[in-house]
Formats: sequence, structure tokens, C-alpha cells
Amino acid sequence: MTFQIPCPAEPGMALSEVDTPALLLDLDAFDTNLQRLDTSLEGKQLRVRPHAKSHKCPEIALRQMAHGAVGVCCQKVTEAEAMVAGGIPDVLVSNQVVGPRKIQRLAALAQRARVSVLADDADNVDALNDAAAKAGVRLNVLVEVNVGANRCGVEPGEPARKLAAVVASSSNLHLRGIHAYQGAAQHVRSADERRALIERAVRLVSETLALLHEDGLECEIVTGAGTGTYLMEAGSDVYNEIQPGSYVFMDADYARNLAEDGKPFHAFLHSLFVWTTVMSHTNPGRAVVDAGLKALSVDSGMPLVDEPGAEYLGASDEHGVLRVDDASRYPLGKKIRLIPGHCDPTVNLHDWIVGYRSDTVESVWPITARGALY
Amino acid sequence: MTFQIPCPAEPGMALSEVDTPALLLDLDAFDTNLQRLDTSLEGKQLRVRPHAKSHKCPEIALRQMAHGAVGVCCQKVTEAEAMVAGGIPDVLVSNQVVGPRKIQRLAALAQRARVSVLADDADNVDALNDAAAKAGVRLNVLVEVNVGANRCGVEPGEPARKLAAVVASSSNLHLRGIHAYQGAAQHVRSADERRALIERAVRLVSETLALLHEDGLECEIVTGAGTGTYLMEAGSDVYNEIQPGSYVFMDADYARNLAEDGKPFHAFLHSLFVWTTVMSHTNPGRAVVDAGLKALSVDSGMPLVDEPGAEYLGASDEHGVLRVDDASRYPLGKKIRLIPGHCDPTVNLHDWIVGYRSDTVESVWPITARGALY
Repeated sequence: MTFQIPCPAEPGMALSEVDTPALLLDLDAFDTNLQRLDTSLEGKQLRVRPHAKSHKCPEIALRQMAHGAVGVCCQKVTEAEAMVAGGIPDVLVSNQVVGPRKIQRLAALAQRARVSVLADDADNVDALNDAAAKAGVRLNVLVEVNVGANRCGVEPGEPARKLAAVVASSSNLHLRGIHAYQGAAQHVRSADERRALIERAVRLVSETLALLHEDGLECEIVTGAGTGTYLMEAGSDVYNEIQPGSYVFMDADYARNLAEDGKPFHAFLHSLFVWTTVMSHTNPGRAVVDAGLKALSVDSGMPLVDEPGAEYLGASDEHGVLRVDDASRYPLGKKIRLIPGHCDPTVNLHDWIVGYRSDTVESVWPITARGALY
Repeated sequence: MTFQIPCPAEPGMALSEVDTPALLLDLDAFDTNLQRLDTSLEGKQLRVRPHAKSHKCPEIALRQMAHGAVGVCCQKVTEAEAMVAGGIPDVLVSNQVVGPRKIQRLAALAQRARVSVLADDADNVDALNDAAAKAGVRLNVLVEVNVGANRCGVEPGEPARKLAAVVASSSNLHLRGIHAYQGAAQHVRSADERRALIERAVRLVSETLALLHEDGLECEIVTGAGTGTYLMEAGSDVYNEIQPGSYVFMDADYARNLAEDGKPFHAFLHSLFVWTTVMSHTNPGRAVVDAGLKALSVDSGMPLVDEPGAEYLGASDEHGVLRVDDASRYPLGKKIRLIPGHCDPTVNLHDWIVGYRSDTVESVWPITARGALY
């Protein structure tokens, strides 16, 4: 009962021959995005640790490393394993790792790579320490501080101080710093409002760092920031590491953010697309494409159609229904590019990302951490 | 750079040991659902061809066959390939297949299994015929008729008659029938409204069949229906094949449908769950679990928490935030079951489905058509 899903493309193929629905990467736009991040941070003393949860692809991580990244962030232990297997020597699991099986794998990974992890609970810190001791490693731990996202993390101030002390006193853990990611700020449309949220986060982190300093606990790393706010954290003199992920791809939702000048946020180019075929067109005003909920995620809105005169109205499991102004532009079999609403969960639906330049496939990279849920 | 995602469970393991987030199948509830479908159709002369897009798992399809299914429906050629590889001898691709690569694979599959496909376009019919001739096979084709879903399909009446004639005159195609799936009716809450939509569909199909009959074109199969309406099509004397899929699992969205008596639609049991761990709990009213957008689909609403006093408020990529009434019931590390909002795209996020009875893992079935997008 073996079955292997066929790969939709191979290098050298014309883009028009690539099977659909497939995940496409415009390599010129991708290179531009890598370069634009560098340019935007010129002159700043800052480590960049891009988030690999966006791409789940070691080939992309390696190119980020070539641009000076110090390693990557991951959200799951198995995602980190995939990155280490793909040649990334330094991974921060920017998440809590809970449960004996996961913790044991994390400690085992630390035998092969530089591994850091977050904590927001003292019992969990003890479990991390025990596993590290058993594996004969020292795990790097960052205290996660809730700076407004209200998801994970201890509260700033005393609760953070208390947990940092537990980490610092653990034989097989190294208190490496503070993780303060204001996730709720990333998609706030107004730059002023994003700035206010990040200024508050910076203040909370500063106050917390002062308390730790009183206890003689120095933080080598203060990390956070996403694509929507990273320039603000980078300019704070408090954060010294940032972890944007979506910048390599951009998606329709990030493009709805506004920049400081009130104009659309166009710091990065759309490099990620879902390649899809018009598979039914029996009504002049409606074209049906073969990319639905199993080829793209609609949690942050419908994808945009990268063609004039068409709108993606709705997704069912395997279909997308487009409103089209001119039926003759969307004949049966026509392939078009969709800009996903939200890149991360869209990438996670695909096994390969097809890189192209000038309508020719240049690379087919496996998304090795696709489905690395654990 | 090889990396294999570890399987979250093995047979014999206690449910509490299963890694999270994992897809669970309550085998008792699953068996009940298989039986309840049979019982609900007793005395009817009807073929059942369950939709495999819901489960993508040959092990489940084989159990449906053991309950008398004549084969399965698939939405993609590669999904059909996975089912044939898993031992299913008769597949209906209940979708248009467009593009030379897909059509060629479909024809090749017909060398190994009984294969049927839909069509709603004359040029596409020609392409199917050419590929079938080259492969030395005869493909079964059903004309898809739009009976109100307004997605794919030719209009009923003359357009359907015209396309059926094209199929019937194609040397390597066999006009096997009419496909008339009223997808838009499946999740309409009121049973009366669902019935009105299906009655309209039945009328449109009858009128179309009469036209075909005038031309001497007899339809061996008239198929359609989903979990929300299948009893209506089954009682119509017009449909002779049905294709429910979600009935084996039920999901939170189908459970919002109302039955004929105005009470909740409880024809089937929830057998499908996402197993998740409380991974952060730093605020008494809020517990964070490790199943977010990459472990469940939120297109049809948030998952339900299969525990009292908790509500899944929102999903980010790898996290779900629960409101909890009593913090002490949701300690760090606690594992809970979530009932997915929409089963099909949730299943497609997982590589395995973990079957259990009485808190012990009995089976770990690969979801071999997961990601079979092409």
C-alpha cells in the first residue's frame, strides 16, 4: 500500500507545465526580500534569526543564513529537527515544549546542535532540566514574557524575575535571555498603533530586565518581532535579536498593513504564490480554479488573484470560485497565480516549493517540516 | 537532508501517551457511524460510494467497502491513485480533470482500476477521449449538471443533453450517467430548506434525464448527495447512487444542522478529534493548547472543546487559546480532545489517524492521500 504523491515540477520545466495546485516561489522577488531585510537593518547591531515556521524549508533557511542569520526560530521540536537535519546549526524553539516525549527529543537534539527553548512555567523548567541532565546537555532557556499578545508567557516584572531565577539555578539550563514577541501587533493596520504597542512592549521588557539585573541575571538575548514591526524593535536599543518570518514571502494580509507614511506596507515583494488552473467555466461571470481549502489557508481572508479583472470569492475543499469580468481571459486550462491570504498555514499544505525565474523552474525544494506538528 | 516526521502513536499505547497535536479516531463511534448509514438506507435500492476526500485513508475506505460501498469518490487524480494503491478497485473522480498531465495519469489509472470522471466541457471531453485512446482504455464519464451549487457543471436541460451526446459519441468514453451534487444544500441548517433545495435538484435531474432518454441516452448512474441531505436524494427514486463523506467522522459544523424534527442533527456520532495538550497556562481564565491553524481548519468555525467549561476562542498558527471557567481543570500538560469545525481540511493536515478504543490505541493508519493535490 505504498503510495508516493508525485512532485508537480522539475527544474528546467516551463512554468506552464507545472502541475496545479502548486506552491510557487518567485526567486527574484525572494532574493529581493532577503536583500531588503539586510538593507533595512544596515548599521544596527542586531542578530537576525528568521522564523522557519513560515517556510518550513531548510533550503530557504540556508539562504537566510547566507545573508547573515544566526540561526532560525522554530515552533515545534520536530520542526527544529527538520532544520538541523537540513544543515542549520542553531535553532530557537520559540515556544513552550510540554510533555515528556517532546522534551526528551528536544534534549536529544541539543546533542547535535545549539538548541534554545522558551519557558513560562516553573514545573516545565524542572522537566527541561531533568531531561537535559539525562541527555548530558545544557539547554538554553529564554523566559517568555507576555508583552501584550496575551497568549503564552509570564507577566513582565516580578513573575518574569521569579521564573528567570528558577532557570538560572537549574544545573543543566542556561538562562539565555528574554523572549518578548508582541504577536498581536503584527497585523494591526496603522503604523502608529503598531508603534504604540511595541513601545509598550519595550517598556515592559526594560523594566523586567532591570529587575533581573538587580538579581545579577544578565540577558544575552532579548528577542521578538515579526515582519509587521521588526524595525520598531530593531530601533529600540532593548531588543538585540529579531525573528521575522513572513518577509521572505509577503502575503495578502501583511500587504494590508499600512506603512509609517499611511501608504500600503510594501517593504517586501510578494514572492509566494499558489499556481492554479481554471478547471470549470460554465458561466461567463464565474471561473472555478483547482485551489481550495486544501491548497491555501483562508483564515486571514481569501487569496488575491494576480491578474486583472478577477476576484477569488470563496473556497471549498478543492475549488475556488472566481468572479471574472471578462470570461475570455479565463479559458479552461488557463493557469494563474494566487497570492495567499496567510503564508504560514498555506505553505504547510504543500510538500514542495517550486522556485522559478522568467517562467522557467529553477528549483524544487522539499518542505521537509511540512506537517512537523509535534 | 533526509528527515522523517515521527509518528505520534503506536498500537497498544495508552491514549495519554499519544503525542499532540494528533488526529484521533474513536473506533467505536466510527463503527457506529458505518452501521448507522447502513441502517438508514435499509430497504432502498441504492449504491453507496462514500467520498474519500473526507478521510483520504485507504484503511477507512476498505472498511466502507466491507459495509457494502461500491467504491469511493475522489476529488483529485492523485487521491484516486492513492485509493487504488490502497486496494480500492472502483473510483469516481467526482470532479473535472483538466490539463494533459492529470488526464494522462487518469487514463493510466484506468488500466489498473475501474475509473470514472466528470465532465462539464466539450473540449475537455475530447481531451479525455484522446488520452483514453492513447492508453487503450475506455473511461467512464458522468456529465456534471449544476443543480444549484453554482460551482461546476453544465446547466440542466439542453446544455446537459448536448454534452451527454458528445460523450456518447466519443470512441473511448462510456457515458455512465449524471452527477448532480447540490453542495450548497449540505450545510443549510433547516431541514425544510435543505429538502426544498434537493426537491428542486431532483426535478432538474428528472427533466434532464427525460431529454437524454429522448435521444436514446440511458443513464446507468445518477449520483450526488452529501451527509447533510443523502436521505432526501435516497428517497427520490431518481438518484441511484449517493456519496456522503463526513458521516464517518461528523464535525462541529455538520452538528449545527437541524434534523426534520427541528432538533440537532445527531444522525452520526463525533468520531474524529484533534488530540491536544495544554502547553501554557499563565492566566487563570486562559489555557493555551498546541493545536492551531496547522492542526485544524477554522474555515467553518472554531473547534469545540470536548470537555465542560471551556471554549476555543481563536487559533494562531501553532496555538489555540481557550477560555476556561475553572483553571484547575486545565493544568499544564493536560491532553484534551477537540471536535474540528470542518473535518475534510483538518484531516488533510495530518499524516496519520490514530484509532483508539477505551483509551488504548488500536490502529495507526497512514493518511496516504494527504496532500494529494494534483
